[in-house]
Formats: sequence, C-alpha cells, structure tokens
Amino acid sequence: MNSLTITAVPHIPHIQPGDNLAELILHALSHANLALADGDVLAIAQKIVSKAEGRLVRLADVQPTDRAIEVAAQTDKDPRVVELILQESEEISRMRKGVLVVRHRLGFTSANAGIDRSNVAQSGGEETVLLLPLDPDASAGKLRDEIAARLGVQVGVVITDSHGRPFRLGTVGIAIGVAGLPALWDRRGEPDLYGYQLQHTDVAVADEIAAAAGLLMGQAAEGMPVVLVRGLNLPTRDARATDLVRPKEMDLYR
Amino acid sequence: MNSLTITAVPHIPHIQPGDNLAELILHALSHANLALADGDVLAIAQKIVSKAEGRLVRLADVQPTDRAIEVAAQTDKDPRVVELILQESEEISRMRKGVLVVRHRLGFTSANAGIDRSNVAQSGGEETVLLLPLDPDASAGKLRDEIAARLGVQVGVVITDSHGRPFRLGTVGIAIGVAGLPALWDRRGEPDLYGYQLQHTDVAVADEIAAAAGLLMGQAAEGMPVVLVRGLNLPTRDARATDLVRPKEMDLYR
Repeated sequence: MNSLTITAVPHIPHIQPGDNLAELILHALSHANLALADGDVLAIAQKIVSKAEGRLVRLADVQPTDRAIEVAAQTDKDPRVVELILQESEEISRMRKGVLVVRHRLGFTSANAGIDRSNVAQSGGEETVLLLPLDPDASAGKLRDEIAARLGVQVGVVITDSHGRPFRLGTVGIAIGVAGLPALWDRRGEPDLYGYQLQHTDVAVADEIAAAAGLLMGQAAEGMPVVLVRGLNLPTRDARATDLVRPKEMDLYR
Repeated sequence: MNSLTITAVPHIPHIQPGDNLAELILHALSHANLALADGDVLAIAQKIVSKAEGRLVRLADVQPTDRAIEVAAQTDKDPRVVELILQESEEISRMRKGVLVVRHRLGFTSANAGIDRSNVAQSGGEETVLLLPLDPDASAGKLRDEIAARLGVQVGVVITDSHGRPFRLGTVGIAIGVAGLPALWDRRGEPDLYGYQLQHTDVAVADEIAAAAGLLMGQAAEGMPVVLVRGLNLPTRDARATDLVRPKEMDLYR
C-alpha cells in the first residue's frame, strides 16, 4: 500500500557550535533502533544546523547602522536584531509596527530573515541571535554525503524552517535546504483523471515534506528537530531549495 | 515513539454527483483492512467532495457578462470559466496574461478560484467545470458526523486543495475544510527551547496535514484522493478551515 511513516528521532542532544551533526543524528537513530535505508528522507530543523555551524551572533557585538535604527523604530524591534536582519537580506518586502518581512539573501521571503526572539538565547549570560545557515543547500548536501560515507546509504535531506504566509494565518514548515531529492517535482504534461494534460503541476515536494515533518517537530520546546520520513519513493535528484524561490519577475506579490 | 503513519486509501471509485462519500470511503477502508480509530484524520481531496456534491457546471449553460469577457481577454482565459471564477469570488487579487488570482467567497486567495483546466471534464460529451464545495467546513463536518454515526469513532476530517503561493514556486496541499481538529494550533505562551516565551507560534496544523497528505495524493492522475493520517494526537476541536484565512486588515500582500 502507498504509505509513509514519519518518525521524530528521539534523544537529539542540545547542539553546540562545532558539533558534528551527522554523527549526533546517526547516534540518535541507532540509539532508537532506526536503521536508515536508501530513499529515506531526513527533515532537520534549521536551528540545529545553524547552531552546529556556529551562526550565533552576540548582540553586544552588533553596531546598528542609522538605517537599522530607523527601521527598528518603524517596526518596534531591537536595532541590533534589525541590523542583522538587514545584513541577511536583499530587500525589505513589507514593514509596519511589529512586522519586518524581507527577501533573504537566499531568496526566501519571510519575517525577520528567520531571526526572531525565540532564536535569542542566553549563552554565558550574553544575548545571542541565531542566523540561518550560510548555505542551507550545501549544509543538506554535506549531511547527505557524510551519511553516505558513514553508512553507505543514500538519503534525502531537507532542512526546514517555519514560515508565516500571505493570505493565511499560522506557520507551516518549508524547505530552506535540500539534497538528494527533487525540491520541485515537475509533473507537467501528465494526464489527469479525465485525460486532460495537466498544465501546472509542479509540486513543491520538499515543502510538503517540511510541512509533514512540522507536524512532529512542533516548536523548539518539544526538542524534536530531526524527523525521519520513509516511503516517499522519490527520484534521486541534485536539487536545491533555492529552486523553490519564485523569481521576482514571476512574483505578483513582491 | 512520536510517529505518524500516512496511508493513501486504495480503490476509491470515481465519484459521481449524489454519491454518498462517507459510505464509499468507509467501504474502501474496510476493503483495505484499515479500521478507523478515534483521533485518526482523513484528508480528502476537494475534487471528490465537489463531485459528490454535484458542483459540476456545464460550460454551455454559462453566459459570460461583459466584465467576464473583459477579464478573459486580459487573462487569456475562457470567458465562461472566468464568469464562474468571478461568481465564486469576492475580488480579483492579481491578474495578467494566463493568471487570474482571486479572493474566493470562502476567503481563500488562489488561482482561478480553484477552477482550472484539469477540473474540466467531458461528461456526456459536454464540457463541465468543477467548483469548490459550497461550504467545505460543513462538508467536512458532515463526513465526520456520518462516520461517527456509522462506526462510533471520532475522526478528524481535512478537505484539501492544491495551491500555488507568492514567493515560492510549486503547489502545496492546503486545508479548505476542517472538522474535529484544530485548524490553527495556538501554542502561544509556551516556553521555547531556551525558556523564552514564544510570541507567534500559531501552527497551521490543518495545512501541514493537507501538505503531508499531498505527498501521497499527488495529482488526480494517481486517483488517491483519500489519505488516512494516524498518530497526530491532536485535541478535538470545533474548528473551521476559514480560521486559516488571514483577515484583510492583517494581510500586507492583498
């Protein structure tokens, strides 16, 4: 039968900068008697990838520019956090009191460039902010390669984040890094139920995987940042999450 | 372990107007030896709900207004289909050649009010178009109630559709009808990993369920319009998919 099993991997430790994420994930998997197989997909929350990659910035070290101070005043945010948001962004999409939506340098349009208060941690009594990985697609590829090297299995990796959306309330999991599976599944031209040729059938399969994983990850509070998805039978692809970014000229809502 | 199983229910027959959907789904479930249990969630593709509810319109019966003819010219679409799109909509959100995004009377913002060529069927040699259910939340509630009456089990029901999005390419499954589970899960105030109070943690859980189901439903071509999701442990709620509609005053991208 056409079926998926989606399992939150227990006992993932709190990740520290410099940790070997692949090693820690594989340890947790074996501890849970979960043996990876070819075609499995690991969905991994952005926070632990960024943590392992040392993307923490001490707010005390941030000097806000005049521009950041001005945007902070308009949005009611910490000027130091706004400075980092602007550094991480290509352009401001929308802003108003309490809201700063930007187009991230990676192309993703989201609130606060993925930086929010829930990413702010006390480490050694200092306020730090967690930025997105420098290159989440590369991070996903590195994890995939390291797992292949250690276990000899080919898995897909999706690095997930939680985004709000225009038109709809609530956050959903989305893919910001992808390796070893299609991000966007172009099924254009396949006949539909009635024999018509489907016109627009690109399925954002990596986003659907991230959303499915989000059902188990919930919020950071639950400490379930790694989810194993089994049964997808997706083709192996050399894809990137940036394939999911709508080109500006195709976006009617910039 | 924290785990979900997501199963596409095999042997759902082609649905005809007037069919008893609950009966056909329960028959397919028992045929597949899938016994529903309290807390299970059924994700059901909008197309078969609309079909069963007789939401087919013969294009030959549609008289386009001048407005529809004008919009059809601007968007390169069939004036009769545009007429139906406008009848189903509150307002046009964006349009250009080949694109007509509207705010549906139900509040959802989507292309063509959920009507597209892949919904056009030949029935008795006539072109017909399939509209969304009149009230998908009510349709979901009716299915939930009928299943409770027949089996004595309390299931959640999510009626799903496939939407494109601003900023991102590809379609994802979203919820247009919900019964017996939260559409939006407000976890505001729960502490995050670092002990901070999370500020914005409404999770669009019904949309994540729809996206997860979308991984198995794929396109209509696959004929897998019913998906069983087991293991969610969601609270029973009297929720509606319209809870997921962002109020206009809160939407920066209208």
